[in-house]
Amino acid sequence: MNAEIIAVGSELLLGQITNTNARYISSQLAELGINVYYHTVVGDNADRLKQAIELAESRADLIIFSGGLGPTKDDLTKETISRHIGKELVMDLSALEMIEAFFKSHNRPMTENNKKQALVLDGCKVLANHHGMAPGMFYTQGNHVYILLPGPPKEMEPMFQIEAKPVLAKWLNQGEVIQSHVLRFYGIGEAELETQIMDLLETQTNPTIAPLASDGEVTLRITAKTSTEEEAFRLINEAEQKILSRVGEFLYGYNDDSLASSAAKLLIEQGLTISAAESLTAGLFQSELAAIPGVSNTLVGGMVTYTADSKVNQLGVERDLINQFGVVSAECATAMAQRVKVMFHTDIGVALTGAAGPSGHDNQPAGSVWIALVLPNDEVVTHHLHLSDMRNTNRLRAVKRTLHYLIQLLTSQSCEQDLNQAK
Amino acid sequence: MNAEIIAVGSELLLGQITNTNARYISSQLAELGINVYYHTVVGDNADRLKQAIELAESRADLIIFSGGLGPTKDDLTKETISRHIGKELVMDLSALEMIEAFFKSHNRPMTENNKKQALVLDGCKVLANHHGMAPGMFYTQGNHVYILLPGPPKEMEPMFQIEAKPVLAKWLNQGEVIQSHVLRFYGIGEAELETQIMDLLETQTNPTIAPLASDGEVTLRITAKTSTEEEAFRLINEAEQKILSRVGEFLYGYNDDSLASSAAKLLIEQGLTISAAESLTAGLFQSELAAIPGVSNTLVGGMVTYTADSKVNQLGVERDLINQFGVVSAECATAMAQRVKVMFHTDIGVALTGAAGPSGHDNQPAGSVWIALVLPNDEVVTHHLHLSDMRNTNRLRAVKRTLHYLIQLLTSQSCEQDLNQAK
Repeated sequence: MNAEIIAVGSELLLGQITNTNARYISSQLAELGINVYYHTVVGDNADRLKQAIELAESRADLIIFSGGLGPTKDDLTKETISRHIGKELVMDLSALEMIEAFFKSHNRPMTENNKKQALVLDGCKVLANHHGMAPGMFYTQGNHVYILLPGPPKEMEPMFQIEAKPVLAKWLNQGEVIQSHVLRFYGIGEAELETQIMDLLETQTNPTIAPLASDGEVTLRITAKTSTEEEAFRLINEAEQKILSRVGEFLYGYNDDSLASSAAKLLIEQGLTISAAESLTAGLFQSELAAIPGVSNTLVGGMVTYTADSKVNQLGVERDLINQFGVVSAECATAMAQRVKVMFHTDIGVALTGAAGPSGHDNQPAGSVWIALVLPNDEVVTHHLHLSDMRNTNRLRAVKRTLHYLIQLLTSQSCEQDLNQAK
Repeated sequence: MNAEIIAVGSELLLGQITNTNARYISSQLAELGINVYYHTVVGDNADRLKQAIELAESRADLIIFSGGLGPTKDDLTKETISRHIGKELVMDLSALEMIEAFFKSHNRPMTENNKKQALVLDGCKVLANHHGMAPGMFYTQGNHVYILLPGPPKEMEPMFQIEAKPVLAKWLNQGEVIQSHVLRFYGIGEAELETQIMDLLETQTNPTIAPLASDGEVTLRITAKTSTEEEAFRLINEAEQKILSRVGEFLYGYNDDSLASSAAKLLIEQGLTISAAESLTAGLFQSELAAIPGVSNTLVGGMVTYTADSKVNQLGVERDLINQFGVVSAECATAMAQRVKVMFHTDIGVALTGAAGPSGHDNQPAGSVWIALVLPNDEVVTHHLHLSDMRNTNRLRAVKRTLHYLIQLLTSQSCEQDLNQAK
């Protein structure tokens, strides 16, 4: 079985929004073992949409549409499909009730055009919208399955997950088990990693191993197709062991892990508290940690000291030190990390200070960043980064590097000993 | 002239990455007045890529490819195009030099497969890659223009901007002027805004007015096509005045403005300094402000007080107040904002405290958030939000709302008076 995903909306072709739906749906279909051969984006134009549908019918079994189910006159996905496949639109009363309830709960008057959203293909399975108004549809005709989903990701994603995926999985009635497992690496480039495991990439057919680089990270997706789950896990585990024997030192996590979630998990497991003093990143390091549920078990808090004065007056870094070394220096980063650790009574103190860019700062070029980590035994580790002149890339990279160094410290043998001694 | 954008890469079809390139290129083409009718995504498969090329040639004048120019065996975009159009690949020496220099500057050994990246279509204009290795290409044959760009957005975007766009603009030699102007609104829903200006949306043909909602914000793009710039500006200005006379109170900015940049601009213009104390957002409010260059003229710094103890011990909120009202309360938010304003000696103090979710916090349900703003005259404004149980959506929404309230305060007449009195 193979699928094509058609996103409908002129705003996509104008570059006003990104087609995140295609990615989401593709990753979900990959889990079901359905191959996606094409993504198509077409505007709010009935003729071109019709052509896209015909083309998709010629090359895919499953066609998933997102967008164009709303109340405005531009929304014409279901109308076009209805005409194309010769199936009428009928009012779905439960969908109409949900739309009326939606307006009531949001304290807004319901305008007449909103009723149009409750029209569905006659004979389809209606997919309820728990986060908006337009219902989705699952419809089979001839050799094709058509799934219609709303455009806003906040409505589409839960609808796919809760409503469409179970119906689709049941319809597939698979005899084959497909399991994927993602290994996450940081601190090694994609080409270098590929070179290290080239023979595996070239010879492996089941499981397959697919590398992917993005934003300083590299992942390897291992996918096995077998008849039982046990066999799939066994194949994946074998491949994983081979890979880790070569590049295991760069592994930081699996599947949905992020650098922040891996760091938070290690901190919580080891019973350590953390605080941070941030200059160029201005809270981004702490905010990334706080994105992880349960982080209040380790993150106490910290300071944003954006100006030199605030580093002195609020954090307590010595004015002389800043005068001598500048705010973008190992000395200043160290003092910031030491001070925040003392002020917030935490086991670990972290500091970031640097020139975010686009211009330099305090006689340092853009992209010059100092990171300091103070460990429970008061040992200090500093790192100097030479990044680009791209302000917000630099800020994010600096945070990722800091999380990476933190993970390295928390997983290294010597650090574990230090940590144990300190406790 | 119309265009199709073909992104090549199996990782897109597997849902491992999002096709942000199509959005970027589309927005750039919109500026040049080039209509985009289709986006296509196809995997690392020569047959299906060839079919996509043939289809695009049948329906577009300009075909822009992204991805598949790298050194690995999966990268086959230029090889497939080369075979399809019958044009050889030749080694480009300047590209080869840049690749060698790239390895040198990154202190990595250059592997043999990297040389493949310097192969280009014979007779093309080579587009230099200033942020990576694979060069791009601009090639015309018959009625078609082919532009080949690398996949990583950090390489593709500057290459399009600096190398491809000028070549394309010259090639177009337009007689027509197209100008766009985007109005940005917050605090009004898309349907409500559309209803308010329905007659304009339905009757306007030049300029056109296109609404777009995303993540709590709504934008209106006004686009005029005329023979002179002056006429385009006049048409846009007329439409803007009509729109603002109805929904002007919700306008916060134009074009590339964000809530953070608009707030930062107002703060800097009015010579006001700001600090923040953040609980659930853990630095995200300050970090969003710090994304704006020049913000050190207003953002002094602040505190992240994630735990109740840190609100008391480091920020100086009274323990009794927290015991009486809880940390998710107007009283706690007010005390936090007052304390951070005093500690950091700023004109304005901001605080955010709440239950980020997915579970509740301190007897408050997930999504319950209190925001406090303390003005230069020490007047306090508080707001209570009832958001969802989605942790990171809530954290971002809370920050956006805070920026919105701040902008409202900084642009309201009464506040300006207060601010002037206070100074």
